[in-house]
Amino acid sequence: MDKQATKVILTEKEMPTSWYNIQADLPEPLPPLRHPGTKEITRLPPPLFAGALDEQEFSKERYIEIPEEVQEIYKMWRPTPMIRAFRLEKALDTPAHIYYKYEGVSPAGSHKLNTAVAQAYYNKKEGIKRLATETGAGQWGSALSMACKFFGLECKVYMVKVSYHQKPYRRVLMETFGAKVVPSPSQDTQVGRKILEEDPNSTGSLGIAISEACEDAFGRDDTHYSLGSVVNHVLLHQTVVGQESKKQLEKIGVYPDIIVGCIGGGSNFGGMLLPFVKDKIEKKKPKLQIICVEPTACPTVTKGIYAWDYGDVAGMAPIALMYTLGHSFVPPPVHAGGLRYHGMAPIICHLHRLGFIEARAVNQIATFQAAVQFAQAEGIIPAPEPAHAIKVVIDEALKCKQSGEKKNILLALSGHGHFDLGAYEKYLAGQLEDYEYPKEKVEEALKQLPKIPA
Amino acid sequence: MDKQATKVILTEKEMPTSWYNIQADLPEPLPPLRHPGTKEITRLPPPLFAGALDEQEFSKERYIEIPEEVQEIYKMWRPTPMIRAFRLEKALDTPAHIYYKYEGVSPAGSHKLNTAVAQAYYNKKEGIKRLATETGAGQWGSALSMACKFFGLECKVYMVKVSYHQKPYRRVLMETFGAKVVPSPSQDTQVGRKILEEDPNSTGSLGIAISEACEDAFGRDDTHYSLGSVVNHVLLHQTVVGQESKKQLEKIGVYPDIIVGCIGGGSNFGGMLLPFVKDKIEKKKPKLQIICVEPTACPTVTKGIYAWDYGDVAGMAPIALMYTLGHSFVPPPVHAGGLRYHGMAPIICHLHRLGFIEARAVNQIATFQAAVQFAQAEGIIPAPEPAHAIKVVIDEALKCKQSGEKKNILLALSGHGHFDLGAYEKYLAGQLEDYEYPKEKVEEALKQLPKIPA
Repeated sequence: MDKQATKVILTEKEMPTSWYNIQADLPEPLPPLRHPGTKEITRLPPPLFAGALDEQEFSKERYIEIPEEVQEIYKMWRPTPMIRAFRLEKALDTPAHIYYKYEGVSPAGSHKLNTAVAQAYYNKKEGIKRLATETGAGQWGSALSMACKFFGLECKVYMVKVSYHQKPYRRVLMETFGAKVVPSPSQDTQVGRKILEEDPNSTGSLGIAISEACEDAFGRDDTHYSLGSVVNHVLLHQTVVGQESKKQLEKIGVYPDIIVGCIGGGSNFGGMLLPFVKDKIEKKKPKLQIICVEPTACPTVTKGIYAWDYGDVAGMAPIALMYTLGHSFVPPPVHAGGLRYHGMAPIICHLHRLGFIEARAVNQIATFQAAVQFAQAEGIIPAPEPAHAIKVVIDEALKCKQSGEKKNILLALSGHGHFDLGAYEKYLAGQLEDYEYPKEKVEEALKQLPKIPA
Repeated sequence: MDKQATKVILTEKEMPTSWYNIQADLPEPLPPLRHPGTKEITRLPPPLFAGALDEQEFSKERYIEIPEEVQEIYKMWRPTPMIRAFRLEKALDTPAHIYYKYEGVSPAGSHKLNTAVAQAYYNKKEGIKRLATETGAGQWGSALSMACKFFGLECKVYMVKVSYHQKPYRRVLMETFGAKVVPSPSQDTQVGRKILEEDPNSTGSLGIAISEACEDAFGRDDTHYSLGSVVNHVLLHQTVVGQESKKQLEKIGVYPDIIVGCIGGGSNFGGMLLPFVKDKIEKKKPKLQIICVEPTACPTVTKGIYAWDYGDVAGMAPIALMYTLGHSFVPPPVHAGGLRYHGMAPIICHLHRLGFIEARAVNQIATFQAAVQFAQAEGIIPAPEPAHAIKVVIDEALKCKQSGEKKNILLALSGHGHFDLGAYEKYLAGQLEDYEYPKEKVEEALKQLPKIPA
């Protein structure tokens, strides 16, 4: 037999033409959303979201067609490669086969562009002129800025302050695509001003930035809000990743034994795992192990409670039943800005509750150690977020070395770390901090959960 | 007919297995190299270069096999995509078809990795433990650092001081791959110390950094020097780019009318054009227009003289017959650090003298304007170096709009600008400078050319 190719490539014609909607196959339906004011069961608020996105949020259709205009834009960088990590395997001396699906080839540098393009498309179609959003690490803001430019929409980005200062070039990237970027908390919203009054040194959080972007969108008729993770329609759009991955591995006769991805809001890993979890739900692949990885500094699934909570700090976003550390919790400033969110995609939480996926938390220094080992073997500098997953992939590959098992491990490598080299610099200089679970802060935040009538 | 795909993709099996050596097909042979001391005709100095590279430098074999180990590493990112710039064409409202070969998907971010891997391989094979090199923009240093790590070699990089400070993350990237990086001129060499004594504020130049790296390699038995551009074997290794491009365009039945690329030392554009210029030499494609683009701040081909000159400032590198602005010329600190070189690849100069290629110079602000227009249409943020070529591609596409011609324009997009956002920031803030041709400095430098005996 020929040596296996390093990359499995699909043609544009082999790209998925529909998104896969897990809601068609869930053994138990997802819990509903509740209105932040009335606490009643609700749809997505129309002043914030395009109608098409609200429809997708609650749809039970198994496959939802990807509009042709969106497919055309996907083709600028999709299908993305599936790469066999031959050199990492050799460095680890493991019998395991490691594959990574690399979304960093997107011009925005991550998977986020998959949903950004779809959201910009639907909003444009419904006559919206401007989108407001938040960004943590800057990956989402970059993607939405680019997508807005593609469809001729304006874009306003509230960027979590700690990232705004850690990653000045992320801001420049967004501005190159014409977006207006401010550090959050900002003076541009009531929520921002209130938080700055109470704590002028607030480093910000995704929860705060979401509140600011929602307030912005509520206040203007020409503006909608756009969310880069957590909600169902975002995970839906990301299923192009998992669908392509499945087809790529099928081409070489491989089905993964373990799938690993990082979770912040859940969109990267959701996109990857949903087409695979279908096989687990249908009992075709009972042994498939699906592991999501989060930082010890913000351990939503491993340490949070399953409860009704707001999606944002100010209580303007809908209330979801999810694992949460409390919407007022502000995580320590780990460099994986995209993983600093108090809650988690309800779909991910639901699947975890049903026993289909497991979760692990890893610390910052071990994460960067794994990232550098990966980079030195594979060349690619991973973003700090998927570096969390790389740490677990290496752990699992080393277990295989012990046991002699030749497992197939699939890594969701959501993006590159070209804008995160400030963090690598700190790691190399030995200046990076580990953060343990901030138990007291979480307990305090959990006292402020909304009361839901029975 | 189906709509043309956005990308033309080759499989790993379709990758070239040989490099194409233009020296087999030149109507007149290349002029020789001369020893910097004796001025006699010389080979590459053995204390600096691996024997295999010296052999390639002067070989007349048409095809030189790519070692299997090098091919395996190429497969980590090659073949690179050929992308149709549908959205840029639309933005320009031009009947021209614009294609770009995108080398930015390499993990080092540019075409430079193509030769870095080959050079590290041959040096490793010949028992060398350490490579010393210079880098301008940081693209070459990143590539060699990565290649050295792949083959277990140490790497020392002398980084032109202006880039060292403009692009701190380039340094961190190299350090992530284990390289030792110093700003040049440095205190680590006699050449560097002498220059710093005369001008402590020297911003450095590629010529100075080459001298430092050569001195480093001359001084240590375990160390060779490695060059990222200019010399024949580097352009040879880069011909994978042009060979793939030719095959990709053939697949869709296209032959370019115009090929455009930037030139600093000539490796990016050499790699692209050499497989095409063959057709011009053989009179198969007399109308093919090949345009190389340089900055007005360092206009080697458009304003330099054709003369024997040293490859470096200190006169340690061999003397070549080439276009030069004088080896002591230090160009203004334009952001395209990779284009700040006083000389030019002898192959490029020779082909220009023979009338096969033409040259243009463009200024900095117009270049960044073109780069932003490209980014907003295609998503990819180009490095400042290929942005010079983008400016000319846009000019040519607009000429087609005037004339109604449906020309096929091929752009060599050598790398991304993720580490150049400091320059984009200045452009967006209106703080970027234009530099006109520094005539007096060049005239001064040209007085110091070496005397070659008749």
